[in-house]
Amino acid sequence: MDAVLKVLADKHDSYLRDLAEFVAIPSVSTDPAYQSEVRRAADWVAQRLRKAGPIEVEIWETPHHPAVFGRCNGAPGAPTVLVYGHMDVQPPDPIELWHSPPFILTARNGRLYGRGVSDDKASMLLPILAAEAFFMAGENPPVNLRFIFEAEEEIGSVDLPLLVRQRRNALACDVVLSADGGMWRPEIPSITVSSRGLAGLSFTVRGPGKDLHSGRHGGGLANPLHAAAELVASLHDGGKVAVAGFYDDVEAINPALRKALDQLSFDEQKYLAEVGASAGFGEPGYGMLERQWYRPTIEVNGFYGGYQGPGGKTVLPSEAHVKLTCRLVPNQRPIDVIGKLQHHLKQHCGPGISLAFEKTQDGAMPYRVSADSPAMRAAADTLAQIFGMPP
Amino acid sequence: MDAVLKVLADKHDSYLRDLAEFVAIPSVSTDPAYQSEVRRAADWVAQRLRKAGPIEVEIWETPHHPAVFGRCNGAPGAPTVLVYGHMDVQPPDPIELWHSPPFILTARNGRLYGRGVSDDKASMLLPILAAEAFFMAGENPPVNLRFIFEAEEEIGSVDLPLLVRQRRNALACDVVLSADGGMWRPEIPSITVSSRGLAGLSFTVRGPGKDLHSGRHGGGLANPLHAAAELVASLHDGGKVAVAGFYDDVEAINPALRKALDQLSFDEQKYLAEVGASAGFGEPGYGMLERQWYRPTIEVNGFYGGYQGPGGKTVLPSEAHVKLTCRLVPNQRPIDVIGKLQHHLKQHCGPGISLAFEKTQDGAMPYRVSADSPAMRAAADTLAQIFGMPP
Repeated sequence: MDAVLKVLADKHDSYLRDLAEFVAIPSVSTDPAYQSEVRRAADWVAQRLRKAGPIEVEIWETPHHPAVFGRCNGAPGAPTVLVYGHMDVQPPDPIELWHSPPFILTARNGRLYGRGVSDDKASMLLPILAAEAFFMAGENPPVNLRFIFEAEEEIGSVDLPLLVRQRRNALACDVVLSADGGMWRPEIPSITVSSRGLAGLSFTVRGPGKDLHSGRHGGGLANPLHAAAELVASLHDGGKVAVAGFYDDVEAINPALRKALDQLSFDEQKYLAEVGASAGFGEPGYGMLERQWYRPTIEVNGFYGGYQGPGGKTVLPSEAHVKLTCRLVPNQRPIDVIGKLQHHLKQHCGPGISLAFEKTQDGAMPYRVSADSPAMRAAADTLAQIFGMPP
Repeated sequence: MDAVLKVLADKHDSYLRDLAEFVAIPSVSTDPAYQSEVRRAADWVAQRLRKAGPIEVEIWETPHHPAVFGRCNGAPGAPTVLVYGHMDVQPPDPIELWHSPPFILTARNGRLYGRGVSDDKASMLLPILAAEAFFMAGENPPVNLRFIFEAEEEIGSVDLPLLVRQRRNALACDVVLSADGGMWRPEIPSITVSSRGLAGLSFTVRGPGKDLHSGRHGGGLANPLHAAAELVASLHDGGKVAVAGFYDDVEAINPALRKALDQLSFDEQKYLAEVGASAGFGEPGYGMLERQWYRPTIEVNGFYGGYQGPGGKTVLPSEAHVKLTCRLVPNQRPIDVIGKLQHHLKQHCGPGISLAFEKTQDGAMPYRVSADSPAMRAAADTLAQIFGMPP
């Protein structure tokens, strides 16, 4: 292992040159003008994987951008680890706000700047370099490795489900390690073990069949803006979601997790200052991080109706529109939560008002892995060794 | 009187030609391109007044459009009646929706069409023609007459308060008759005896200092859309305004007026069908017309914040905006009502939220004349004779 670590230390500058080359490829997946650059990134990744050692590399075509797959069976009997990462990046706009050119890796104040450095080019390069270090030290990596690097993460991983179905055997593994995602704090080790799910609902509240003069008609008819405001207000009671059954499937927070959160060096006042809020607010009985990480929410993302221009206009509008999303925690299912929400809204709809729900998206299931699995324990032990504190 | 009525009958076609000439002048007060046309309308009105008989006519200049004044002292000892009307019109846009050219008087299905025919060119022409009929029948009108025709009604009568102050003596009178305003129903006589006042308030609800990702931050911070919805919802309780003191100065509806309303041939189902509403809604204990005519209201005219585009966006927005207006009834004052509203909103504002009020307009005082004055009784008797039913 010492030999592996020595390789890693010796090749530090060479790794930076690798990263600079990778960052220089503007692999913007959302913009068709960059399509050939995304392919160039896939070719670069495939070549870098081959260079790392005895890894079988394939480029997998999809309806949009190619993915790169790698396989290395050097540890018979040991577990197989599938490493995920993505090589595509967000557009660099607005370009004038960059302090250095987005596709030139630039060191400044002890940090590296460039489009996609942290999301996800440096992160996905690390496991390739780690595997390479074993080979260069004359060893094999201690686990069997699979690599899957897609180029569509920034456009919603549109072809990934198809690839997983089509390449089921190639991708078979004991554990998946995502080389994507941020660190909680640069100096504090962390492992992401869960992700809240998503359920979205948009609806229109209708009153009179056309916009009316509020002086002539006001007071006689239901105003859709009042009705929509009452519906939105009815969703919460003092920060707690007031939709019947919303919390039915939600587990209490694991006491060990609660204790671990309490021990985190989280400065709520500093956080509030960063986001420009004068106070926190939310479900009573839970701390800020508990509410944001472990509790489900309903958030209205958009609300509009009537006159929005300068000054005033005495209109009793015909419609009001509300867009909301829920964050879900384990055991909650998007379709079930949407059903409860729709039922609640219908129940709270007053006279002279009709409700129309927009076709909802599928949403996303909440996700959580056990913190007690052998892979998780291995990751936690390793991080604790490196940082000198538990993740 | 028979001779006067005969003149009116004989000259029917000639009156229509007068109206056609008047309508042909595009006196659009809001558009500077029509400024000379507005002056042409004033000249036409002045000339038509002079032609009507021994009436002293003056054109009064203002900072914007001229007004026409007329004086006829033919009835010593009798009351002086000031007739108000306006010669300016709204722009004809969208022009493609007209079935006949807007500035050509056109008869169709027993009605006359043209821009400003009902608001207010035909209506303001009638009292001129009535006075003329007396002169042509060899009599004097039975009251002393003043006429004031402005050309700024469609731009908020901006110079009328100035004219009233400057021309106080010329305008002195016992009663003012407005030759503007619609009829309740073509076949039912009516007199407008009151007009609800207006108070407007716009405010911004602020939460975090910038738009945030609702997945990352949601549940931890107050959402301005939730807070604004709760504020709007708090303004009413089951259709009744819930702002402390809002009804303090409001009188009970006069029982005679309430009875008169009940006797009106108002078909609520027909009205609801016309406006496309499935049911009426408002302050409990009052009928539709009572709520719309005699009770004060709060109506939200605009509410907006967050994402309004297609699909969804997981944003926890920084701001929400609300625009509302109140309709006021006698004894309510705009400044007092706005003060009570602001107090209510501040009291109902939760943690992590700040409120900012936009500078409010002056509003308008509610207005009511006694239905028992001699002039009102004379008007009511006359309408009853003509229509065969009381107004």
